[in-house]
Amino acid sequence: MRVEIWSDIACPWCYVGKARFEKALAAFAHRDEIEVVHRSFELDPDRTKGDVQPVLGLLAAKYGMSEAQAQAGEDDLGRQAAAEGLEYRTRDRDHGSTFDMHRLLHLAAERGRRSELLDALYRANFAEERSVFADDERLVELAVAAGLDADDARRVLADPAAYADAVRADEQEAAQLGVTGVPFFVLDRAYGVSGAQPAEVFTRALEQAWGGRSPLTRVTGTDAEACGPDGCAVPRS
Amino acid sequence: MRVEIWSDIACPWCYVGKARFEKALAAFAHRDEIEVVHRSFELDPDRTKGDVQPVLGLLAAKYGMSEAQAQAGEDDLGRQAAAEGLEYRTRDRDHGSTFDMHRLLHLAAERGRRSELLDALYRANFAEERSVFADDERLVELAVAAGLDADDARRVLADPAAYADAVRADEQEAAQLGVTGVPFFVLDRAYGVSGAQPAEVFTRALEQAWGGRSPLTRVTGTDAEACGPDGCAVPRS
Repeated sequence: MRVEIWSDIACPWCYVGKARFEKALAAFAHRDEIEVVHRSFELDPDRTKGDVQPVLGLLAAKYGMSEAQAQAGEDDLGRQAAAEGLEYRTRDRDHGSTFDMHRLLHLAAERGRRSELLDALYRANFAEERSVFADDERLVELAVAAGLDADDARRVLADPAAYADAVRADEQEAAQLGVTGVPFFVLDRAYGVSGAQPAEVFTRALEQAWGGRSPLTRVTGTDAEACGPDGCAVPRS
Repeated sequence: MRVEIWSDIACPWCYVGKARFEKALAAFAHRDEIEVVHRSFELDPDRTKGDVQPVLGLLAAKYGMSEAQAQAGEDDLGRQAAAEGLEYRTRDRDHGSTFDMHRLLHLAAERGRRSELLDALYRANFAEERSVFADDERLVELAVAAGLDADDARRVLADPAAYADAVRADEQEAAQLGVTGVPFFVLDRAYGVSGAQPAEVFTRALEQAWGGRSPLTRVTGTDAEACGPDGCAVPRS
């Protein structure tokens, strides 16, 4: 069974939700038969690469709240992250474009290292002091930490077209599925879970999707010309 | 929408079926929204690497027919392949283990070259004189022709454990889905097509699966802690 997870590096609930989902998955009886596929979603797709701003000011402006109120929200997020064993820096984080990170994540997917790079990017963005935005060498360091080759990562960052279509294809697929916010979890293309739900909800979703798997509907035509363990259907003329 | 195709390199109907499916896909209106994933299936998983035998003798023994009858079957396959624009060598082909080829195909998948390597392996096995069995340097050449790095391919061939689990995971998934012969096509994990059906059948299956896509069943818990284009749900304390 396959679970697809749409998320953005700039999304704190994605950081927390990944940990909660992984806790549920680790305890799921059929965990070895679950394939997890991470997919791209940009919360702020129009933001340009150089446009980096402090999170608190953005939050305050967006919600019409004081910076102190925004700070209290960040503090609460920090507590929820800590409850999942995640570090979270509640002061002085930045917000910026995540497009290049998503392109790198597609390179990582080809190398089987997508989950590792996603963890590295989350940690760098949410727990470490040095900004991950508009700093290509920082991204290269994180890619190397996730097991990628530095030159491969540099090549992708230097070519804005590299994996751009793959990022957009993920986003189009999200739109087709009705996904408007992240994290969003799709199980077997049949069940959806929105948000950083508690691990119990992911457990329930895994059980429901696992139990709800239905046999394939066969589309048939002529007698199948196929090969099986007993040999191929050999046309006799 | 995703189409998964289980196949084996030693399966002539897989070779023909891939071409027929691709013809249907090329004419399908939503082709740009179809993701094709090739998966491994060994028809003869117990065969050891060095055990290579002529196809005709195997066919004759398996079906209790004369070599002339087996040859007539191969000739018919040759005509059906030719009708799809595929070369097919009806004389003196070998049969052997395809396990190492499937391991290489998983390396190719990580590099986005699985379909290309599959085409190269099919062509080498069904249309070319030099055997693809028990000849690692031949496989390295084909991997390079499909866009892989020769050293990467050699490393995989030299390590029998490399991608072995990935091959077996594909095969276990086939068993779970009730797949006993190949080629087998699974659309959106909801529809199945067995065998090298005519392109019209694949067209019908694509249309049926596309039209049958159903909205996701939401599994919900607490209020979603999620981020959307208008910002994150900020816990206010």
